[in-house]
Amino acid sequence: MNFLVIGNIIGSALCLEAALFAIPLVCALCYRESIMPFVLPAVIAAVAGSLMRVKKGEPGDMRSKEGFVSTGMTWIALSLVGMLPFIISGTLPNVCDALFETISGFTTTGSSVIKSVEDVPKGVLMWRSFMHWIGGMGILVFMSAIMRFTGGSQMNLMKAESPGPVISKLVPKAGETARVQYGIYTFMTVLTTSILLILKMPLFDAICITFGAAGTGGFGVLNSSCAAYTPAQQVVIIVAMIAFGMNFTFYFLLLVRNWKAAFGMEEIRLYLLIIVICITTITINLIHQGGFTSPTWALRDAAFHVGSIMTTTGYAIDDVNQWPRLSQGILVFLMFCGACAGSTGGGFKISRILLMARGFNRDMATHLRPDIVKKVHIDGKVVEESVMRSTGTYTFVYMAVTIISVLLISIEGKDWETTFTSVVATFNNIGPGLGEVGTVGNYAGFSNFSKLILSADMLIGRLEIFPILVLFRRSTWKKF
Amino acid sequence: MNFLVIGNIIGSALCLEAALFAIPLVCALCYRESIMPFVLPAVIAAVAGSLMRVKKGEPGDMRSKEGFVSTGMTWIALSLVGMLPFIISGTLPNVCDALFETISGFTTTGSSVIKSVEDVPKGVLMWRSFMHWIGGMGILVFMSAIMRFTGGSQMNLMKAESPGPVISKLVPKAGETARVQYGIYTFMTVLTTSILLILKMPLFDAICITFGAAGTGGFGVLNSSCAAYTPAQQVVIIVAMIAFGMNFTFYFLLLVRNWKAAFGMEEIRLYLLIIVICITTITINLIHQGGFTSPTWALRDAAFHVGSIMTTTGYAIDDVNQWPRLSQGILVFLMFCGACAGSTGGGFKISRILLMARGFNRDMATHLRPDIVKKVHIDGKVVEESVMRSTGTYTFVYMAVTIISVLLISIEGKDWETTFTSVVATFNNIGPGLGEVGTVGNYAGFSNFSKLILSADMLIGRLEIFPILVLFRRSTWKKF
Repeated sequence: MNFLVIGNIIGSALCLEAALFAIPLVCALCYRESIMPFVLPAVIAAVAGSLMRVKKGEPGDMRSKEGFVSTGMTWIALSLVGMLPFIISGTLPNVCDALFETISGFTTTGSSVIKSVEDVPKGVLMWRSFMHWIGGMGILVFMSAIMRFTGGSQMNLMKAESPGPVISKLVPKAGETARVQYGIYTFMTVLTTSILLILKMPLFDAICITFGAAGTGGFGVLNSSCAAYTPAQQVVIIVAMIAFGMNFTFYFLLLVRNWKAAFGMEEIRLYLLIIVICITTITINLIHQGGFTSPTWALRDAAFHVGSIMTTTGYAIDDVNQWPRLSQGILVFLMFCGACAGSTGGGFKISRILLMARGFNRDMATHLRPDIVKKVHIDGKVVEESVMRSTGTYTFVYMAVTIISVLLISIEGKDWETTFTSVVATFNNIGPGLGEVGTVGNYAGFSNFSKLILSADMLIGRLEIFPILVLFRRSTWKKF
Repeated sequence: MNFLVIGNIIGSALCLEAALFAIPLVCALCYRESIMPFVLPAVIAAVAGSLMRVKKGEPGDMRSKEGFVSTGMTWIALSLVGMLPFIISGTLPNVCDALFETISGFTTTGSSVIKSVEDVPKGVLMWRSFMHWIGGMGILVFMSAIMRFTGGSQMNLMKAESPGPVISKLVPKAGETARVQYGIYTFMTVLTTSILLILKMPLFDAICITFGAAGTGGFGVLNSSCAAYTPAQQVVIIVAMIAFGMNFTFYFLLLVRNWKAAFGMEEIRLYLLIIVICITTITINLIHQGGFTSPTWALRDAAFHVGSIMTTTGYAIDDVNQWPRLSQGILVFLMFCGACAGSTGGGFKISRILLMARGFNRDMATHLRPDIVKKVHIDGKVVEESVMRSTGTYTFVYMAVTIISVLLISIEGKDWETTFTSVVATFNNIGPGLGEVGTVGNYAGFSNFSKLILSADMLIGRLEIFPILVLFRRSTWKKF
């Protein structure tokens, strides 16, 4: 373990965070609010970050192990500083509350302990939503895009932070890949905000809602989430959420005009297929069992929440606790699906579903005819057996973390609907669940212990288990 | 696909079933009840079975494929005949109800749609419990033990029916292994009944309760399940349930006096460790949060339900709906654990948990140091990579079946507690869940559609997915 290079990475990330406080600071200035909640943390981050960068480590020492450890620790460090605005502004004086809200922001979860967001200063709300945008594509990917690294260090960092089982470099160099990704990300963000502005959404709302949709986060700026926006604005939000939940390789292929490869991506096709089937089923169910009289409202309601839950965003325009059970069940099913790998969304990921379903099909075939040898293919390429194997163990640990977390939250004694969905909604970085934590509820009713467990779930979920769990392995901390 | 050998296997199983109807028939005679509910099905089974055995297939054609298909179809055929006593006796005139109860019996689930078992004829109750005993160790294993097969056919049948990821032959020949297993099984069954008789349990109860415990089924003969038995009798039932949930290789090793290997079995150790931890935690929780004033009652209550749920038996002595949430949560966690591989119990199986946990540990190590090659070991032996891989895909499909079933049951519109635990309790062959299907409830309130889905879940769970799902693969039915 090389602590110097890890310290350098965390230090760089903190310096970057100090600079990013400029956005909410400008917002606070515009609304004539106190700027202290942002100046103080920025100074702390800049000083701490600079100190950690004084002594330089050998870049070649950034191996796989250091990559995982720096990723986990960077996210924790960023959250510890990122929560200060909530505490200083008095929005959330309790440290556990502030930490929960911050981790929920960076991990693009969108679960909130704030009961009335309309009473919160605009600058703090801007920071809350901006964290989604930063966390969405990954803070270390951001660093890779704007800084110069040497050796294989970038690749090891991006491998640890990027979501999904396959990390595909769009272009040969890791730094170049990061720049392309952030380029697409920024362009789509600006585009969404512009359209919302054209549709007459207030500037502040348009920026914050776009940040939330782009990072698939879900923090709103109104107590009613997105219910108060016009149907046209809601449709734009639906399209944006679904677009940001797609594998960014798709957009890259569009950019280089490789239409065939783009529209042939099996993950994208499965993703869109699931969305269409779920929207159709819920619409029909809402009309037949749910007593919805307007088909267009049922369709918009269904599309909004399917898009919101599947991409793990978490915006809402309706109280899904009032929906019929089947429709609620489909939402829970979508919670377990998640978005595409290589998108800003969280969850189990469509590519893993695709891999495991193909693997099962292969297993059936080899069970029936043990003499044949079969390989799993995705997009026409052979999938390595080590990927199949580690996706299998990932599935197991994913379930194990879910079950153990449910057990720990059940100590609260809340009803099972709330207990179960609060874990699923945070671990998969979605935001709202059902029951008390439904689309019109929040997480304020949990004890500090539960809030910390759920915060850990958000981090473990966003970083896909490994970078957090390695921190608890003794052998990780051995000198070698 | 060779239909002749498959027909032969199903025919033999039906003939065996015809003979097995003798047990409830004798019971009905003793209690001077109508014997028609058993004579008629026995004749039907004997005639149909003999017809299917007229034209003999080539034993060498019993390959892996035919093994899986015959296993799935045999269990379905046995259930279709096995449900007749319920219909003829008038206990369950609805076909869906009778099928549900029968599949619940053979798969050793123990979920019931009978509201008051005390009103049911004793012969029918005996058949209900006897099905548990037959299903526990496997009907095809039973056939292997008493009939003579040629070629590799036996191995292919036992591989398809036996629970758990590793099928270990105790002795070189498959038929011999089956005989040893049924020998141990029968001895332990007689032993348990004898002890219960010594403790003054009525003969009828002693036999039925032992059948249920031996097969880890859980059908009781009193409306209160096991609550009315004396503490001493309950303790015997606890020990019996836990004993039948252990890998039978353990007993074989004891028989051949290989103590070191027996007590060194990692699956047995993990199994007992989980039981001890869960009993302790629940006992403490019942005293502190649950308001239990008697520590011995809390301990017995906890031990009974931990043993009952983990081994997937499903007997009860208390209404667990009244327990505190954490204790309920531990029961749900145990539902996902299941018993040992190679036992009569169902569920995910401890050996799979062991395999996947080791696999995850290996993955962490190789993530951190991609240059090293590491193998997974169980009991000091290297586990083949193909086993690791297929255990991974099994985990995925196991979760997928659970989620899809929950969706289908949610159409009923029952509360989430009932919807979720009814699927988990049937798919893992446990019996009772929480809410409406709790230890004092039953499955009578479900629609016919839901009963069929849950019946399918029981079969899929008992046969560990493959033998049922291959029936729905088009390529299975190709001539080659």
